[in-house]
Amino acid sequence: MPAPNAVILLSGGMDSATAAAQARADGFVLHALTVRYGQRHAVELDAARRVARSLGVADHRVVNVDLTAIGGSALTDTIEVPLDRAVDAMGQDIPVTYVPARNTIFLSLALGYAEVAGAFDIFIGANALDYSGYPDCRPEYLRAFEQLANLATRAGVAGTGRFRIHAPLLDLTKRQIIERGVALGVDFSLTHTCYAPDESGRACGRCDACQLRLKGFREAGLVDPVAYAGLETRDSGLATRDS
Amino acid sequence: MPAPNAVILLSGGMDSATAAAQARADGFVLHALTVRYGQRHAVELDAARRVARSLGVADHRVVNVDLTAIGGSALTDTIEVPLDRAVDAMGQDIPVTYVPARNTIFLSLALGYAEVAGAFDIFIGANALDYSGYPDCRPEYLRAFEQLANLATRAGVAGTGRFRIHAPLLDLTKRQIIERGVALGVDFSLTHTCYAPDESGRACGRCDACQLRLKGFREAGLVDPVAYAGLETRDSGLATRDS
Repeated sequence: MPAPNAVILLSGGMDSATAAAQARADGFVLHALTVRYGQRHAVELDAARRVARSLGVADHRVVNVDLTAIGGSALTDTIEVPLDRAVDAMGQDIPVTYVPARNTIFLSLALGYAEVAGAFDIFIGANALDYSGYPDCRPEYLRAFEQLANLATRAGVAGTGRFRIHAPLLDLTKRQIIERGVALGVDFSLTHTCYAPDESGRACGRCDACQLRLKGFREAGLVDPVAYAGLETRDSGLATRDS
Repeated sequence: MPAPNAVILLSGGMDSATAAAQARADGFVLHALTVRYGQRHAVELDAARRVARSLGVADHRVVNVDLTAIGGSALTDTIEVPLDRAVDAMGQDIPVTYVPARNTIFLSLALGYAEVAGAFDIFIGANALDYSGYPDCRPEYLRAFEQLANLATRAGVAGTGRFRIHAPLLDLTKRQIIERGVALGVDFSLTHTCYAPDESGRACGRCDACQLRLKGFREAGLVDPVAYAGLETRDSGLATRDS
């Protein structure tokens, strides 16, 4: 029997890279899907291409979805990305970087691609710990989408297969995600996480996403290999976050 | 209390125009969403703009989603649109005009827009009778999406409201949809239904969508006001379909 296909939502960040590496380790042939949704941090797309190449995916599709026509988020509208929020406060409320219905839109596109690619397994790098308080990263949400997928599709009608939504990082802390990624051979230097990179694509180190990433690397006792703006003269971005 | 907002998925076809007119009659302020997804029949978009204007919508957004990057349908790929299929055979299988996960993608975008517009009611012109055999037009599918919507969003987390998916045409035949639309004052001459229009945008009269539309008008004893290619010299497209 040939290895089964899986669709993996690949943003270019460290979570989706690790989830993809997990899918590969689980024996799936990877079909990567990256959504270009008008995010300010388009540098993510270059990261997604690098990560896809490094993982040896069988196919990589980039779908344009102009979410700026809907707006309502700091990532797709003229709202400022907040910086220097306390890490402890993250997850308490839904931040302005929440993109309305983003994961539902992304999973829908992944579902369409899965039908075309003959895949029944969809991987997403969502995690519910050390997350930013997004409603569409919660386990009950992902279960509901899986149920929907099996009603929405040819396969659901024909009964030829059952869709499964895999979120292998769901219960992991950022530290554990980094450790898992390292164990799976993910090259984190290829990834991009920052919501507010500078013109040359360097991470800010101050938005929620950067802070959670840096905290994860710090707790794992590792050095984050990506460049942070304003921290060039230090040994690493990590040491400086504590100093 | 001001009238509540509703998001209506407006394709430019007769079903969504009627569903929108129903939402208006039900007292909602209409926020129309049209998805430009790479469909061959881009003439639909002009129809959507005309219909939106005629309904007096408060807002109309057009979102570009490049589903040609995924393909897999006669509407988004290089697959031929079938013509002259027997009407009785439609609904028996899923035709090549099925766009993988289309309604899931559309409803996801509508959900994002609803969050931004402060709407909890989403209208879709899906119908399960006289339909083309699409899995994502079935009542159990729509119920599953409603459940998902309430887990996917700020409102779902905050408990500030409950999303409802309205499919007012779900149990209507095409004939009944046309009669409902006429009663609600829909100007069907503004709508476009055909999957394979000619260069000037005239309907073919032969694809599944045209055939179901023509059958509906015929059964309602009405003349379809839109132009059909090759039928210019007749009184109407209807009479000629029976001759």
